[in-house]
Amino acid sequence: QKTNTQKFGKGLFNLIGKDSTWSMKIGLRFQTLATSNWEIHHGLSNPASSMMIRRSRLKFDGFAYSPKLKYKVELGLSNRDLSGASKYTGNAPRYILDAVLKWNFSGNFVVWFGQTKLPGNRERVISSANLQQVDRSLLNSRFTIDRDMGVQLRHHFKLTNRFLVKEVFSISQGEGRNITTGNIGGHQYTTRIELFPFGDFANKGDYKGSDLKFEPSPKLSLGFVYDFNNNASKTRSNQGSYMTNDTGFYVTNIATLFIDAMYKHNGFSLMAEFANRTAGDAFAKNADGSLTGDVVQVGNGLNLQTGYLLSKTLEISGRYTNISLDKVITGKGAENQYTLGLSKYISGHQLKVQTDLSYTDIGFKTNQLLYRLQVDIHF
Amino acid sequence: QKTNTQKFGKGLFNLIGKDSTWSMKIGLRFQTLATSNWEIHHGLSNPASSMMIRRSRLKFDGFAYSPKLKYKVELGLSNRDLSGASKYTGNAPRYILDAVLKWNFSGNFVVWFGQTKLPGNRERVISSANLQQVDRSLLNSRFTIDRDMGVQLRHHFKLTNRFLVKEVFSISQGEGRNITTGNIGGHQYTTRIELFPFGDFANKGDYKGSDLKFEPSPKLSLGFVYDFNNNASKTRSNQGSYMTNDTGFYVTNIATLFIDAMYKHNGFSLMAEFANRTAGDAFAKNADGSLTGDVVQVGNGLNLQTGYLLSKTLEISGRYTNISLDKVITGKGAENQYTLGLSKYISGHQLKVQTDLSYTDIGFKTNQLLYRLQVDIHF
Amino acid sequence: QKTNTQKFGKGLFNLIGKDSTWSMKIGLRFQTLATSNWEIHHGLSNPASSMMIRRSRLKFDGFAYSPKLKYKVELGLSNRDLSGASKYTGNAPRYILDAVLKWNFSGNFVVWFGQTKLPGNRERVISSANLQQVDRSLLNSRFTIDRDMGVQLRHHFKLTNRFLVKEVFSISQGEGRNITTGNIGGHQYTTRIELFPFGDFANKGDYKGSDLKFEPSPKLSLGFVYDFNNNASKTRSNQGSYMTNDTGFYVTNIATLFIDAMYKHNGFSLMAEFANRTAGDAFAKNADGSLTGDVVQVGNGLNLQTGYLLSKTLEISGRYTNISLDKVITGKGAENQYTLGLSKYISGHQLKVQTDLSYTDIGFKTNQLLYRLQVDIHF
Repeated sequence: QKTNTQKFGKGLFNLIGKDSTWSMKIGLRFQTLATSNWEIHHGLSNPASSMMIRRSRLKFDGFAYSPKLKYKVELGLSNRDLSGASKYTGNAPRYILDAVLKWNFSGNFVVWFGQTKLPGNRERVISSANLQQVDRSLLNSRFTIDRDMGVQLRHHFKLTNRFLVKEVFSISQGEGRNITTGNIGGHQYTTRIELFPFGDFANKGDYKGSDLKFEPSPKLSLGFVYDFNNNASKTRSNQGSYMTNDTGFYVTNIATLFIDAMYKHNGFSLMAEFANRTAGDAFAKNADGSLTGDVVQVGNGLNLQTGYLLSKTLEISGRYTNISLDKVITGKGAENQYTLGLSKYISGHQLKVQTDLSYTDIGFKTNQLLYRLQVDIHF
Repeated sequence: QKTNTQKFGKGLFNLIGKDSTWSMKIGLRFQTLATSNWEIHHGLSNPASSMMIRRSRLKFDGFAYSPKLKYKVELGLSNRDLSGASKYTGNAPRYILDAVLKWNFSGNFVVWFGQTKLPGNRERVISSANLQQVDRSLLNSRFTIDRDMGVQLRHHFKLTNRFLVKEVFSISQGEGRNITTGNIGGHQYTTRIELFPFGDFANKGDYKGSDLKFEPSPKLSLGFVYDFNNNASKTRSNQGSYMTNDTGFYVTNIATLFIDAMYKHNGFSLMAEFANRTAGDAFAKNADGSLTGDVVQVGNGLNLQTGYLLSKTLEISGRYTNISLDKVITGKGAENQYTLGLSKYISGHQLKVQTDLSYTDIGFKTNQLLYRLQVDIHF
Repeated sequence: QKTNTQKFGKGLFNLIGKDSTWSMKIGLRFQTLATSNWEIHHGLSNPASSMMIRRSRLKFDGFAYSPKLKYKVELGLSNRDLSGASKYTGNAPRYILDAVLKWNFSGNFVVWFGQTKLPGNRERVISSANLQQVDRSLLNSRFTIDRDMGVQLRHHFKLTNRFLVKEVFSISQGEGRNITTGNIGGHQYTTRIELFPFGDFANKGDYKGSDLKFEPSPKLSLGFVYDFNNNASKTRSNQGSYMTNDTGFYVTNIATLFIDAMYKHNGFSLMAEFANRTAGDAFAKNADGSLTGDVVQVGNGLNLQTGYLLSKTLEISGRYTNISLDKVITGKGAENQYTLGLSKYISGHQLKVQTDLSYTDIGFKTNQLLYRLQVDIHF
């Protein structure tokens, strides 16, 4: 006896409760990643390699009780997904990625409550299931504000017949995900505005890598984010490590700015992001003013990424990333990374093989070459 | 293609195997909690706040092979659920809450084998999904014997046409849940007797907070528990922390007594619990008789909780808890906590918003005020 | 409303995607284990006992996109399953056991990519769900190469009409499962050849304990494994602990050999395994040649196990295991273990009660007696 269900890549189940009182889509995926890297010094030297299950996720989403109340729960299964246990997470793995309720209480207004991604940089909000290259850029690893616990108010409206505007305002704890020790310092306030001068993308393409839908007319989305973390105590706003000192925690105001864009047309796609982080006083101090050694990672980042579909399933892509942390404060030189990628979308983002080659020019350090191969499968 | 399933709140799936050889209900839930607390000292001072996914669970239960063999598996997903990793748990998170087989081998006799809640205090055995207020009382946190690995023998009979009696006898390891390092000292023996002079409650209401069924006639359940943990080595019987000493573990006999009651009628509910813990010698010692600093948490607890449904979905509730640990032994002053709660049961316990305000008067310490808001959703 | 599904023990779900684009079987199981052991010294002394959920697993397998692309994901839920967290696993529990894709790219050739069991000793590859006794032998705990990340190439062909040959060649990282810190030293190369002179077993019986299918004619499988771990850095090839030294890691070539056999006929079964491990230089050293104290566990193991079904559901089994690590290198005396087992297969391996008694004669140590009782249930 077999249960018939939907096509490959559309979820394990698409449940509809009796009397349409609820729905649930259940998804499962895993990524198998192999990497090789070298230092570039008299040719290639110091080779290193790694193979791992990079990500594996179990996902539940749908509506509950009323179509106006949606929810999402996403769980991480791989060791990289689960890592980050500390005394701030109950010494337990960070198993829950998302657990959030979304209530459409009136018109175009939706309020979110729970743990989920903040309305930060576009590259982060694009699911790791839908990336154009093997993984996100260095800009994201250095500047993202990722996930947090809190409340988001979301709204959208049409400026003209085509011109769409989306706004999000969020208040969160400002400590990152899965924290059990409560709020330190003040809260985190995030505002994101998105402009769609040519209207919405097909199939939510503004938050998916690659123009697999071959947009017949040009589509553009521009995003502007201002994030203020009041009395933050981590080196990268709500990310990075806690800045402990002799009295507990060093806190300072940290502001993060993102400007990003997505453009798609007929198999061509371009994603651009600029990031900037500043801090009230970036040097963590003890009560007597002596330095603890921790420093807020202030500076700028730029990421430009473009892809072109040679056929319906084969894409080449290129990426340039520049990270310029404040040299005086962080002691780190600028990084420039150049990546060339090739993706075979056997069944869209649901079954794909992706490979890329990255050259990284790092100030004050040896340059590096990185080769990656990844297979993705999403049920 | 959609799979039709049951109404909201009745499980993701209610599977029935071919030829009725097995069944399984699969449930998922999560609680999003926000708290604020203050010290009461010249008004409100030292404010602190926290937001977290408090609990999230995945649950499987039904019968297997024969309707006489039931089982339950419950997994914890949130960081608070998973916390408690130590060398005694294989340095792994405590993922499994329940994994138990229940065999109805004869008449009204059922034997349980595995890890699950002991037949201890009523407030603990009430699922965290079915609480009347945001969370359990201080009595439970100080005195509960929670879960353990072992065997339970359960039986029930009718004394008269209406008067129902349930008995449970349990032998368990006495170390709490998810222990991989085996038994230390002797085993734990628990006996619980329950009396239902007016017959059984509707919809298992004796183990659910709030009288959502509006019992048309008064219902009462009285419970009596005697728990003996032979040569126990944890500060709260099978809970708390291990009392290590220079030769390994300090062990002493620990006895815990509970008397509890649940009364419901027409939207009104009252739950009362009394707890008492004693130990052979509460002071943990090294081989030479010197003190290690650990102390068995002996003393008394009292919890009185009542609720009244203003409508079918709105309830006010009040709670008074007194914790009187032995001052001489534990060095702790008495605590009195007063809680006022409000619950909106949008869809019973399956979708609810609960909030409460607690004032705690703590001996030798600053008094505290605690505000909590929680949203629960159970599929 | 109920979802009808298959009979007990055949999986929670057997999904078939629309247009047969994918399939998935979902399984769940748990084992409840109670053990008692004693030292044998003037009768039985130093008794110890333990009860735990020994294993609990969630399993997903089937094909995806095309019947030629199969996959398997297996997750561990119990604390023993999850244990082994270290800085090499991102300080996260080892939740994923298997996550592997299997592509039948041509004829009888299948390539595997991901994390799964290596083609090592037969006893390991037999699922812990399908064991003849309560648990695997000491040979397996000392010599198995268990799971790793990598690529396997599998092939089979018929030598004659009946004589079947299966070959596997594997290249893996050589660090064991769930490692996030990449490859240390070289890779691991494993070759396994299997001969089936009388053809294949019924119901994959060559990798299941007990002849529950009562093979009408004799069936035999012989296996030969040669495993070479180039510049390995763990005490048991890709298992055991890392051999750290003053410059990072001590590495040496480690070779492991297995010869094993399975014979079944009419309710009788015999499994035999021989293991041998050698190392280039078994003594871990610092850069200056001084010993670190770590030693590669070199030596031999022999396991002989036989079972006979007294009825369709009741089996007696016996096992003899000899472990002879190199005394000079490891400082460990030989171990001989004798085990007598009894299994009641209430519903095959899906619902069974198993018990065994083991006497262990350990060189240079006190002999031991071990009693175990286990209940297994697999949905």
